[in-house]
Amino acid sequence: MKVAIDAMGGDYAPGEIVLGAIQAAKEYVNQNLEIILVGDQAQIIQALDHQGDWKSLRISVHHAGEVIDMHESPGAAVRKKKDASVVVATKLVKEGYCDVVISAGSTGAAVAAALFGLGRIKGIERPAIATPMPNLTGTTVLLDSGANVDSKPKHLLQNAIMGAIYAEYVLNIPRPRVGLLNIGEEECKGNEQVHATYPLLKQLSTVNFIGNVEGRDIPKGTVDVVVCDGFVGNIVLKLGEGLASAILQLVKEAIKDSGFWTKMASMLVLPALKGLKKKLDYAEYGGAPLLGVNGGFIICHGSSRAKAIKNAIRVAKEFTEQDVVSHIRENIAKEGVVTNE
Amino acid sequence: MKVAIDAMGGDYAPGEIVLGAIQAAKEYVNQNLEIILVGDQAQIIQALDHQGDWKSLRISVHHAGEVIDMHESPGAAVRKKKDASVVVATKLVKEGYCDVVISAGSTGAAVAAALFGLGRIKGIERPAIATPMPNLTGTTVLLDSGANVDSKPKHLLQNAIMGAIYAEYVLNIPRPRVGLLNIGEEECKGNEQVHATYPLLKQLSTVNFIGNVEGRDIPKGTVDVVVCDGFVGNIVLKLGEGLASAILQLVKEAIKDSGFWTKMASMLVLPALKGLKKKLDYAEYGGAPLLGVNGGFIICHGSSRAKAIKNAIRVAKEFTEQDVVSHIRENIAKEGVVTNE
Repeated sequence: MKVAIDAMGGDYAPGEIVLGAIQAAKEYVNQNLEIILVGDQAQIIQALDHQGDWKSLRISVHHAGEVIDMHESPGAAVRKKKDASVVVATKLVKEGYCDVVISAGSTGAAVAAALFGLGRIKGIERPAIATPMPNLTGTTVLLDSGANVDSKPKHLLQNAIMGAIYAEYVLNIPRPRVGLLNIGEEECKGNEQVHATYPLLKQLSTVNFIGNVEGRDIPKGTVDVVVCDGFVGNIVLKLGEGLASAILQLVKEAIKDSGFWTKMASMLVLPALKGLKKKLDYAEYGGAPLLGVNGGFIICHGSSRAKAIKNAIRVAKEFTEQDVVSHIRENIAKEGVVTNE
Repeated sequence: MKVAIDAMGGDYAPGEIVLGAIQAAKEYVNQNLEIILVGDQAQIIQALDHQGDWKSLRISVHHAGEVIDMHESPGAAVRKKKDASVVVATKLVKEGYCDVVISAGSTGAAVAAALFGLGRIKGIERPAIATPMPNLTGTTVLLDSGANVDSKPKHLLQNAIMGAIYAEYVLNIPRPRVGLLNIGEEECKGNEQVHATYPLLKQLSTVNFIGNVEGRDIPKGTVDVVVCDGFVGNIVLKLGEGLASAILQLVKEAIKDSGFWTKMASMLVLPALKGLKKKLDYAEYGGAPLLGVNGGFIICHGSSRAKAIKNAIRVAKEFTEQDVVSHIRENIAKEGVVTNE
């Protein structure tokens, strides 16, 4: 298996990207994994050398001379900069040289590169980002979490089919419960978009649709796949991240503020909190796949450090091994979804 | 000051509603506060008697023979059941006999009763629910948090004006920072609704508009008033509540699971967590005002117990003392907002 990594994308590129790649190459040394770092060759090799001896690892460098900046208009930048690292990495998959791309660069540019470079699966009009979120008992996948806004009901229907496959094959949840994110459980609740989506989801044969779910169902873990518009999904995702980190900070402060004996106690308790922090840490999840394009494409948080990149490589590996793209093709055909864009 | 309480609304009505009223009447005994419990007289008096001697308190009962159920269609129920507790309580305000209504019943019915009973402030097309959410440093008001969906940009503009007033006069935040909830900070980000809203908010003279804010800004406390559509706001609110409670549960479990010494430590730490739980507890906030109607109307969580009702009475008191309705009228006029519905 060959994984192409956009080594120039992200707040800590290329240093942390390269380090994550090295860690993964070591961890998966016996698992037939090759990592191709895409970007400025001189910078990448310097970063590799900085980490010590890497030449025995299955890591290689593929040069790409341009980088897409966070502030560029994604579509225009992808069209113009044909030698951008994310564009070249995607091309390696398109041409069959690699199996999957990973990028922590601009999400918009990543989505554009995937759309232009790999194209959409037949029957999918708008690929969606499927982000795993921790809950009380496991993981809930949220999609779309930011690839598209102003989605039509048929796009949410496509999200439901794709999300169910991801949850089943990559997260190993048999017959995952798929819910429509809404402001109440009753079918009559919500805005025009979800009103029109509900009956479409009810008719699906490959999806275990459990009806409307509310914001509180995500942390409770009473739903495995949450279907929503990318505008709502992105707000939910960022609120979730921010709130988890804020509450853990408040817990620490509350313990520290409460006197000498409690301080002693907190020294014993803090390790327990660390485990929890790990559970709530997006970096442990590594990356979110862009579902609906003809190939594997894993999108990482812009602030990804080595750990997140290493975990994204694990996600990329599972995504490829489980052949998620083929399963999406099959179920989209089974459900008779026809693109009319 | 006279507060009319829908004693029949909410999961724990009338028992907990009545108890909360008694607690408030005792706490504000010297503050010229009268509480009028509206609903089935026999049931309310039985609940009052159950709490011991209440006859020296400034609490009275106003009979109303009907109740609106959570599952009824709000508009139809309010029109049909003219003797419903929430309708009668609203009428007491409309007729000048009371200053403000409190209801923990169906939110839809409460909004409908307020709209039909009190009418909208001139220039406001859609009243909004303004819910306070705790953050790292204080409180952020979220509006609309569920009164309306599919809002137009002009409705979000009206929310911004109203939310700024509430934050300034009731939460005592001078020159509150007002942000538009979006999926990125740049003006170009988001869906059609927020694209069209941004330039409208920029032009307001009575509002300190700080631009787009993201989900993570709410817990961080970098914004005081968050403007959004009620669909998004309601999801944010319920996710926030659910996530806070889930994380605190995980913290407790993490402490308990980690062995004997840590268990000892947790006995010392748990009191500190209790303080935090209080900070994150919606019941401490009591209620969310419905802004934009001609009169005070405080909406409570359906699962409100006595503490939440007592705190809602405090909110109702502050809302009335600060004359929020007049301030909204003034600023809507200052901004030249004209209703064309």
